[in-house]
Amino acid sequence: MTFSATLPTPLRELISERSAVEPFHAMDILARANELVEAGQDVAMLCVGQPAAPAPAPALEAARRALVDGRLGYTDAGGRRELREALSRHYSKTYGVEVAPNRVVVTTGSSAGFALSFLACLDCGARVGIARPGYPAYRNIIRALGMTAVEIETHFEDRHTVTPAMLDKAGPLDALLIASPANPTGTMLTPEALFEIVDWCQANGTQFISDEIYHGLTFPGAPRQATALERSDDAIIVNSFSKYYCMTGWRIGWLILPEKLVRPVERLGQSLYISAPDLSQIAATAALNDKAPALDAVKAQYETNRAMLMKRLPQLGFREIAPGDGAFYIYAKAPARVGDTMEFARTLLDEAKVAITPGLDFDLERGHETVRLSYAGSGAEVSTALDRLKAFLS
Amino acid sequence: MTFSATLPTPLRELISERSAVEPFHAMDILARANELVEAGQDVAMLCVGQPAAPAPAPALEAARRALVDGRLGYTDAGGRRELREALSRHYSKTYGVEVAPNRVVVTTGSSAGFALSFLACLDCGARVGIARPGYPAYRNIIRALGMTAVEIETHFEDRHTVTPAMLDKAGPLDALLIASPANPTGTMLTPEALFEIVDWCQANGTQFISDEIYHGLTFPGAPRQATALERSDDAIIVNSFSKYYCMTGWRIGWLILPEKLVRPVERLGQSLYISAPDLSQIAATAALNDKAPALDAVKAQYETNRAMLMKRLPQLGFREIAPGDGAFYIYAKAPARVGDTMEFARTLLDEAKVAITPGLDFDLERGHETVRLSYAGSGAEVSTALDRLKAFLS
Repeated sequence: MTFSATLPTPLRELISERSAVEPFHAMDILARANELVEAGQDVAMLCVGQPAAPAPAPALEAARRALVDGRLGYTDAGGRRELREALSRHYSKTYGVEVAPNRVVVTTGSSAGFALSFLACLDCGARVGIARPGYPAYRNIIRALGMTAVEIETHFEDRHTVTPAMLDKAGPLDALLIASPANPTGTMLTPEALFEIVDWCQANGTQFISDEIYHGLTFPGAPRQATALERSDDAIIVNSFSKYYCMTGWRIGWLILPEKLVRPVERLGQSLYISAPDLSQIAATAALNDKAPALDAVKAQYETNRAMLMKRLPQLGFREIAPGDGAFYIYAKAPARVGDTMEFARTLLDEAKVAITPGLDFDLERGHETVRLSYAGSGAEVSTALDRLKAFLS
Repeated sequence: MTFSATLPTPLRELISERSAVEPFHAMDILARANELVEAGQDVAMLCVGQPAAPAPAPALEAARRALVDGRLGYTDAGGRRELREALSRHYSKTYGVEVAPNRVVVTTGSSAGFALSFLACLDCGARVGIARPGYPAYRNIIRALGMTAVEIETHFEDRHTVTPAMLDKAGPLDALLIASPANPTGTMLTPEALFEIVDWCQANGTQFISDEIYHGLTFPGAPRQATALERSDDAIIVNSFSKYYCMTGWRIGWLILPEKLVRPVERLGQSLYISAPDLSQIAATAALNDKAPALDAVKAQYETNRAMLMKRLPQLGFREIAPGDGAFYIYAKAPARVGDTMEFARTLLDEAKVAITPGLDFDLERGHETVRLSYAGSGAEVSTALDRLKAFLS
């Protein structure tokens, strides 16, 4: 797999080392589940972090209007001005922090936000701290861009939080990427715990990147939702319309950047993305300016689903259920008797028609014991999944 | 600007070396032109490679229908099956080559296609050959991904073509990326010349990447439009719906991959993009399956615009006009008396309200003498631009 211009021709495999990232098992499970659905099977889909609800009505309506004109083009690399301004107001209204519109950069989903953040701050060989368990794309993007992911192991006993003490032991970090609420654990940091991490990064010359994609989706009893910007304008914020606003397929997100990174990110964005999809920018602006009541109902449904799972999963033998303060995931140890969860997830899908994600996506060392269940679907879907799990396990 | 975990904290600037890519001057000119337009000025826009025409009617109609349902989500990382199948048929119909649908990967514009191609084949430090003058994003993406762009200088006297003899002198190349028709020169390779380059790459263990984004836009007298796949299934093909199909803002393109790269690209795509915008995939499928007659009219307009420019620019003192076999650009030396074209482009915009692109975007060494004019707009826009240029230059 080694590949370099200095090797003689026959040794070149023309496949890079950095492409040898792990697949998303969730996506492979989804592909298999979709095959079953196409074959007429009824599958309870708890495998993908994707709201079952459609985009809010104002977003759909704005998109419809824009299609009548039909002139959709490249926008500025930073995004449409009205969307950047609407996001600026969002920070003032939601968190009481002032963010100049030029510090907002619209991205093609949070996926582009991560890549642009890394590329703007970090060169090949840089070390980036991330939590384990964590969102698998973090690890894979870091590797694909020629850097090293430094995994910080979190534990059920500590609510899966990352602390400054853990960071002290991680070796030098060029950047640290933390999500709160986190995927897959749902763990939220208290504002104080978040600010301690921001301070640690300042003191250690580490760029802090705060993944706030699950903001808006927090449940009773969770800590107050704080943005890292409340503590420092040096943090990079990554966010998206995919989760709270139910707009996954639109591929639209945003960054809040320190002033000094605005121009580097714009330059990189011009070449690597040109601009985010225009229609999605128009729809997202409407979603932000005209908050639909339907989104409250969607969140209420998540809360019901969550309560259902929190109650019934322990009865089925699931253990060490992570906090789930926010987002829409349950992360837990599977019942001891199911053995390896990769095999369990496959069998459960084929035999019981329940799609869940094996823990290996999130934790390459300990994930063979754990699973993630997404409850972003309907109540009926979650309830069906629980019934089928019960039958399958007994 | 140097940045490494081994440096003491105060020396870290937290801005990467690889973000120090050149900006797109075309985009900066566009931003300034847009400011003038917002201030009520009438600007002739010849600066961006973007069709003035809207997406074809079947694409718009399919998007409208999809919005009624409103359930747009992540797709498989490789794209919707029906789009991959439609693209497979497109290769059979257009070029007479067989491409299995699984070798087609749908991308978020050709921008994502380039990044995924590079990441799948090449590690940090790899050397990638590109033509100069050429599309500036090539150089920037290569640098951002930690690799070295090896620029191969082409000349007006040779119709700006790249030849195997030039490649022999370029030093070892891990990959070679060539566009035909090319941006900014419009140069097309004859099928034989293209196949010679494909063969050179095979013989030298170099991954060939063929940018075919301007296919469909070729003019009378141009060589036959050939795809590299006619010669070898080992080539990577990058293409998009942005140009011929007038769908820039939709951010939708595709790759044709050698079998061995399908899975690496899928894995990388899952993490770096998740999937291309769903609505754009639906619209693109319709555009491909139901070819709109309006697209022929758009192309006929380009031909008229091109003829107008080819006739009048020499009268205004423009010299060494590149072939322009295809695409929708004129690349030429500006009249000697205008001096540096970066300054010329700025003054022309402010004083004569004509937006063109300085050659420096495409050629950092010789571009201060050249300009690119995009004729993807209306006939009136091109004609107005020529009148204003004439008045400005006299």
